[in-house]
Order: sequence, then C-alpha cells, then structure tokens
Amino acid sequence: MSASEPSTKKQRTDGYVLYYWPGIPGRGEYIRLAFEHSGTAYTEDSDPSKLLPTITDPKNCGHPGHFAPPALKLPSGKFISQTPNILNYVAPKLGLAGDKWVKLTEKQKNGDKVDIGSEEYEQAEEERAAVNQLVLTALDLSNESHDVHHPVAVEDYYEDQKEESKRRAQSYRKNRLPKFLAHFQKVLESNPANKEGNTYLISSKTTNADLVIDGAEFAFPRRTAALRQSGKYEKVFALKKRVESEGGIKAYIEEGRRQPFSQGLFRHYPELDGDD
Amino acid sequence: MSASEPSTKKQRTDGYVLYYWPGIPGRGEYIRLAFEHSGTAYTEDSDPSKLLPTITDPKNCGHPGHFAPPALKLPSGKFISQTPNILNYVAPKLGLAGDKWVKLTEKQKNGDKVDIGSEEYEQAEEERAAVNQLVLTALDLSNESHDVHHPVAVEDYYEDQKEESKRRAQSYRKNRLPKFLAHFQKVLESNPANKEGNTYLISSKTTNADLVIDGAEFAFPRRTAALRQSGKYEKVFALKKRVESEGGIKAYIEEGRRQPFSQGLFRHYPELDGDD
Repeated sequence: MSASEPSTKKQRTDGYVLYYWPGIPGRGEYIRLAFEHSGTAYTEDSDPSKLLPTITDPKNCGHPGHFAPPALKLPSGKFISQTPNILNYVAPKLGLAGDKWVKLTEKQKNGDKVDIGSEEYEQAEEERAAVNQLVLTALDLSNESHDVHHPVAVEDYYEDQKEESKRRAQSYRKNRLPKFLAHFQKVLESNPANKEGNTYLISSKTTNADLVIDGAEFAFPRRTAALRQSGKYEKVFALKKRVESEGGIKAYIEEGRRQPFSQGLFRHYPELDGDD
Repeated sequence: MSASEPSTKKQRTDGYVLYYWPGIPGRGEYIRLAFEHSGTAYTEDSDPSKLLPTITDPKNCGHPGHFAPPALKLPSGKFISQTPNILNYVAPKLGLAGDKWVKLTEKQKNGDKVDIGSEEYEQAEEERAAVNQLVLTALDLSNESHDVHHPVAVEDYYEDQKEESKRRAQSYRKNRLPKFLAHFQKVLESNPANKEGNTYLISSKTTNADLVIDGAEFAFPRRTAALRQSGKYEKVFALKKRVESEGGIKAYIEEGRRQPFSQGLFRHYPELDGDD
C-alpha cells in the first residue's frame, strides 16, 4: 500500500484466521468443525489480552466492528462475526451449503461461469438458505442450553442464579430439548435424500446443519440418555455418530485437537440434569 | 403437474407470502419492514388454526419443515424460516444487502451477467455478510428483550416468573441494553459512508440492519429515555427516526397498517422498567 492511500485494515492474508477465546470449545467450535470437516486450512489467534481490542475496534478490524467473538478474518482481510453468519458465508466455499452449491463450485473449477441471474444459482441459494435455517435452529437450542445455567444475568456467576437455573433446567429438559430433537428427527425423516438410511438434514451431503447438532449430551447426560432410550429421536443420535466418523472430524477427534466441553456454552451441573 | 410426477409442495406463486401469527408485530414484523421499505408486494396468511400445520408439516411446506413462525413462501413455492435467514435471503432481491449488491442487481437489469467467481460478487457477498452480522446482533438484543419477561420458561406465563423477570430486567437495563446501544453507536460512527451526518449502519443505503433496530423504547420507555438523555447513543436514536421517515416505512406507519407493539416479543411491564 502506498503512503498516500487511505488507511484500510483490509489486508490480504494467506488464509482464514479464527478469533476466539482459548481454552473452551464455545461458539468458536462450530466454525472449527466446518473447517476441520472440509479439510480447509485455518489458523487461530486467541491471545485473550488482544482478542477484544482486535475484533471490536474498527481501527484494527475495519468497519463494522464486532459485538463478540467468534470473528473470522477472511483471506481478503475482511473480518466477519456472528456464528451463523460466519457459517453461512463460508458454507459455499467449504462445500457445506448443500448439493446444489457443490455443483456450482465444480462448474467454476472447470472454468465455467455461473450467473447470479441463472436458475441454478437461484436454486443453490434456496438450498443454502435451508441449511442456514437449520443451523439457526440448532444454535437456538445451544443458546437455550447456555441460558439454563445463566437465566437471569449473563454477567453474573452461575452460583448467583442457581435457583432460577433449576427452574429453567426443568423447562429445558421437559419441553425444549424434546421439542428440538423432535424437529430434527422429523427433518431427517422427510429428507428425500435419506432413503437408504442416510442421516443428512438437507441434501445428500454433510452441511453445516449436520455439524452444529452437539453439546446437549455433555451438559445433560441423564436426560439425553433417557431421550435416546425412548427411541423417538434415533436418527438425530445417528447423525451425530455419523458426523464424528467422517474424514475431517474423525481426524480432528483422534488427533486430540478437539477441546473437551468444560465451562463454556455447555456446562454439566449434575443438579440441573435429571432423567425427566 | 402430471399425475405421474412425485408430489412436491413447491408450487410457483405470484409473490411472497408471509406466515405469521395475527394480532402482534412479533418477529414477523422484521420481515414486513423489509418488504414495506422496499415497496415489494407480499401477502400474509395468518389463519392461526392453519399456521403451524402449514409450516411444520413437510407434506404442506416441503422439506425441511419449520420449527416456528415466521416462515416465508417464496415465489418459487419454497418455504424458508428463521427471521435472520429470511432477511438474509431476500436482502439482495429487495435492495437491502448494501451498495455492492444493489450495483450487481442494476447490472443484471441492464442484461449484464455477474459471475459467482468475480471479484464484484465476492465483495458484494462480504458486504451482505456484514449486513447479516448486524441483523443477528440486533435480533440478539430483541431476543434478550423477550427473555426479560420470560427468563425461566417460554411456555409459562409472565405472571409465573415475575420475580426472576425483575432480576433479569435489572441486568438488561444496566448492562445489556447500554452494551448493544454502544455497539451500534460505534458502528454508526465508523461507517465511512456517514461523513455527512448520515445514519447507515453499513454502506450508504438503508439495509436490513437499519430496519431491525426497534422495540426497546416500547418495552422500556423510562430506561430508553434516560439513555437517550445521556447523549451517548444519539446516532442510534437518529437512525430509528430516519428509518421511520423513509418512503415505504413512512407510508406503512401513516396508513395505519403497522400494528402497535402489545404482548409479543416486546412487552411493556412498568415494574420491569426504570430510569437506571
């Protein structure tokens, strides 16, 4: 950049950089899973003393600054944030936006052009929106899992809202978790691509939607065991098992790089769990 | 459709159809504002006895079914749901995804092709992601506003969780609302397109991000009045005023078609409000 050019924080990088807190999987994990599944290179910048200044100050990250991590620096130098937004942005590039976008990308690789006015682009965008929709619903569940241990004030300790947490946990175990599981079970049952026992939420490939169904088993082992035993949600549990056995995610787990859940978004407090 | 074709619920329609609960603005209002601002025709289907069967059963809405309203039926016949997903999908079509997408759309209208491998498409998608990011952050605030009156169980009445609501309201008024307002104020200050007193969150046009900053003044009139008086968030309040004076939204309000807030997402309970 010449000295006379206006300052811009968009500097091209070699690849994707994830900005997130160290030590917990948290919401950053959903981004990691997308990169790991697709085998796409990314690095992490998780110095906790620099994280917030880097991503919230537009002098460092460009306009607009970000409300909270995770943020992702794109190869163009642009930063984006909000977990479902990051996933939706990278989905076509990582092959996680469904069959139709994968086909468009293959055409591109063969040197063919794909016009944004074409029917094939329209249909791929509709499928990408279905993926994003399912991702948002799964993230709603994970947000509700978080709110079980923080029902009244996100800035206070769990220990200062234990009584309210117990009440919210009852609602979560009895009503909310089964409602979400029933939704995803129904989606797995109605996917026409699942005729031969496949467990894809949408299209005939793993998408971001499949990768974000996670966490409840860690936080509520007794309740999820009981729900599993009911046999009503077997496709949802099968989906999770299938994802963990697939290429990139399998390696991520086996190489010990996946951080265990601990005290982040999902937390296991035995007093909040129960068989029903 | 011939009798031998497999049943598909994707039937072309004349336009967009919004499926949402009657009688409250709720989350459906964010979708209405996008259509109203851009002057794009849409109809509503809000028969409460048919709403959930229509949008949750894939026999009626196609795969995948939806977790909750609002849902939008596209002209292609496809249904999509999740408020931020609907907004992100329609944003380029309604001119609400930022300057760069508007330019692409103009090129299209002139009969020019826009390839998904082009730099101009890449940059427009980055800007669209910035819009979506800001929308998601504003919707996080509206979700937190909802959780103030439903901190422990969404399926129970407010009256059954009043004590917990009071505690959550304190956190919302003191910490959360100011934190979000400060974020949007900072975004308005750093937007290079706002040099001449403009109040766009991103680019030099109204986007979906500008349209979703709403609701807190109804639910917490005393607290928002105090925050307004502090002078720290004047650009955010100016944004809201500007949006309400713009073409489509102005007509929507003046023609009496905009429903008042009542007992939905945003609720005014005086006991949850306060000057600080």
